[in-house]
Amino acid sequence: MNIPQGFRLAGVHCGIKRNAQRPDITLILCDRPAVAAGVYTQNQVFAAPVQVDRERTPNDSTRVVVANSGNANACTGSQGLEDARAMCALAADACGVTDSSVLVMSTGIIGQPLPMQKIERGIRAAADQLADSEQGVLAAARGIMTTDTVPKVASRSLDLQGTTVRLLGIAKGAGMIGPRMATMLSVILTDATLDPSSAQELLDDVVQQTFNCISVEGHTSTNDTVLLLASGAAGGVGLSDGFQTAFRGAVTDLATELARAIPADGEGATHLITIDVCGCQRAEEARTIAGAVANSPLVKTAIAGGDPNWGRIVSAAGYAGVPFAAAEVDLRLNGCLLYRQGMPVAFDAQQVSASIREHRETSIELSVGSGPAAARFWTSDLTAEYVRINADYHT
Amino acid sequence: MNIPQGFRLAGVHCGIKRNAQRPDITLILCDRPAVAAGVYTQNQVFAAPVQVDRERTPNDSTRVVVANSGNANACTGSQGLEDARAMCALAADACGVTDSSVLVMSTGIIGQPLPMQKIERGIRAAADQLADSEQGVLAAARGIMTTDTVPKVASRSLDLQGTTVRLLGIAKGAGMIGPRMATMLSVILTDATLDPSSAQELLDDVVQQTFNCISVEGHTSTNDTVLLLASGAAGGVGLSDGFQTAFRGAVTDLATELARAIPADGEGATHLITIDVCGCQRAEEARTIAGAVANSPLVKTAIAGGDPNWGRIVSAAGYAGVPFAAAEVDLRLNGCLLYRQGMPVAFDAQQVSASIREHRETSIELSVGSGPAAARFWTSDLTAEYVRINADYHT
Repeated sequence: MNIPQGFRLAGVHCGIKRNAQRPDITLILCDRPAVAAGVYTQNQVFAAPVQVDRERTPNDSTRVVVANSGNANACTGSQGLEDARAMCALAADACGVTDSSVLVMSTGIIGQPLPMQKIERGIRAAADQLADSEQGVLAAARGIMTTDTVPKVASRSLDLQGTTVRLLGIAKGAGMIGPRMATMLSVILTDATLDPSSAQELLDDVVQQTFNCISVEGHTSTNDTVLLLASGAAGGVGLSDGFQTAFRGAVTDLATELARAIPADGEGATHLITIDVCGCQRAEEARTIAGAVANSPLVKTAIAGGDPNWGRIVSAAGYAGVPFAAAEVDLRLNGCLLYRQGMPVAFDAQQVSASIREHRETSIELSVGSGPAAARFWTSDLTAEYVRINADYHT
Repeated sequence: MNIPQGFRLAGVHCGIKRNAQRPDITLILCDRPAVAAGVYTQNQVFAAPVQVDRERTPNDSTRVVVANSGNANACTGSQGLEDARAMCALAADACGVTDSSVLVMSTGIIGQPLPMQKIERGIRAAADQLADSEQGVLAAARGIMTTDTVPKVASRSLDLQGTTVRLLGIAKGAGMIGPRMATMLSVILTDATLDPSSAQELLDDVVQQTFNCISVEGHTSTNDTVLLLASGAAGGVGLSDGFQTAFRGAVTDLATELARAIPADGEGATHLITIDVCGCQRAEEARTIAGAVANSPLVKTAIAGGDPNWGRIVSAAGYAGVPFAAAEVDLRLNGCLLYRQGMPVAFDAQQVSASIREHRETSIELSVGSGPAAARFWTSDLTAEYVRINADYHT
């Protein structure tokens, strides 16, 4: 695991979650002011920590990220905003930094006040356990989990003309995952040297191709946040144009790994579905079509049932709101051509069904014309277990 | 039951569906040229019968509507278009009218060629059974059913200055139901006197408030069609402005009853959810918000689970893409205030949960500001049974 220089992490249990084995506070400290950028939910109803972070990013003076799971601090009014600011102040105090150098994230139940005494205790305990170790990273990744079944961590390192630059990301999300926003919580750390405006531009661009291209059920959360922190501790070169491309590629690659991990761990999911749409005039159109397919419960239940139901896929593409010629549509499922130039193709349905059932990953490739633009989207299938989880998860 | 004068109906089994107890051909004959208007799916991928009817409506010369269930004749290319036209010709021949006076509808599996020999046999059998009786109407309503568990029929009569005018509608739909179109198949018959352009304008307006305000899972079908046929056989007055209002009200009322019946019979549904959104500047905005709530799997599973989870409702409203002030939002569930001016309200969760569990109908009322516009939307809840039906229904 490549841990960027300058960062220490921790995750502890403070009692927001009932199960004492599950961390619910995450703390990340940078030993120097880091450049920070953020991308947030596009929901009109956004949580208090989103409001605080929006005010504070981009900047070149972030020292701490504090996060809790089990309580979203969303729809909590002025008390919620006070609590989010108090969380920052508690983390600042525990780490010996200024209030305004702290960013904050929350995830969990909506509409409950934060249990501030527990959070205070948790932040103090986490500050004592900060470490630049794999254990610290895993604890931090666990501290933001809700219905996730696995922690989501990815790292990279790259050599920029003799300087080794490291990237580390953590993420959470398994439900209330929809497009049109930076979906879920994620923090990406690097020891590369960035300035605030280029960090923000980079994050905006990467999120658009990664975290904004995933869904579980298309429900945009109130708390979605992706943060990028750059300590500059690797020293050496700044990111001149030549390195910019390599670094951007590495960040995109890392964010893709984290983004994919979310629908792969989608609530009740038995398949991770990758949807490639090509032949559009603009990438945005391809994303819109891919998103409509990704969010169709009929497509998602078909994959859950091992059914090569190309009619549901083609008709979902058709209602995305993007004009295309139905007679130019080709569709492949797990590499097998099912539909060509707007007409069904004879294929071995049992074989394609078996290929869906036998693999956890499903590939849908849709070509809707001869335009140059393409997009990729990831989603989970829809199972009775998803319904059970969400019918039983009470406020 | 009020059967408009001039119409006879029939429904028979011809073997498209396996179960011989289930009619799969519907025939409607008007004894004189009727005014006909149509509203169709907005899906880019639309079925052959939709193409035929689009070319033929509005008009003042329709004699026959022929429909089949069990096969959608969608994604069937040029053969599908030939078959749809052949279906019209067969119905014309069986009823002794001209080809071009026939409208056609299909619903069922996508991508299979129509079994034309069975359809020919079915049309001839149906022509022999045409009747202006309740039995004929019910058989016709059953002939367009797919996964519906009940036939959907509604009728009205109204007195226009001494002339009795009758309205009768049939509809089908239980899955692949999404907004932004005339969802599903429906035929509305009247013996009032209309001209083609006012019939089309009336139907456009009514559909926008009724069939376009329902969803089961938000997947817009390739075949959605609503037809309005007016025989003029009631005689008496034309629809001058004064009667226009009363007649429009009666058509809207009838269409509302049919539209509601679709999510009420939604696949696997245990609740019919009515969503009222008010306080918007424009009705379209209210419809957009109501539609986002209606299509959220998290809202739909919460209702299935008897969970007054207002956070999911408010956050779904928030991602609809319509700007509003979160601090002005009020929410009532089954009449109980859960959220007021952007803040949760203390309420008896067990009591509200019991009111959801004990009633098949659930009411969600959302006020998002002080604007004059409102909209109403109907949807079903999302149950494990929906997933089972759609994971097991193979192409």
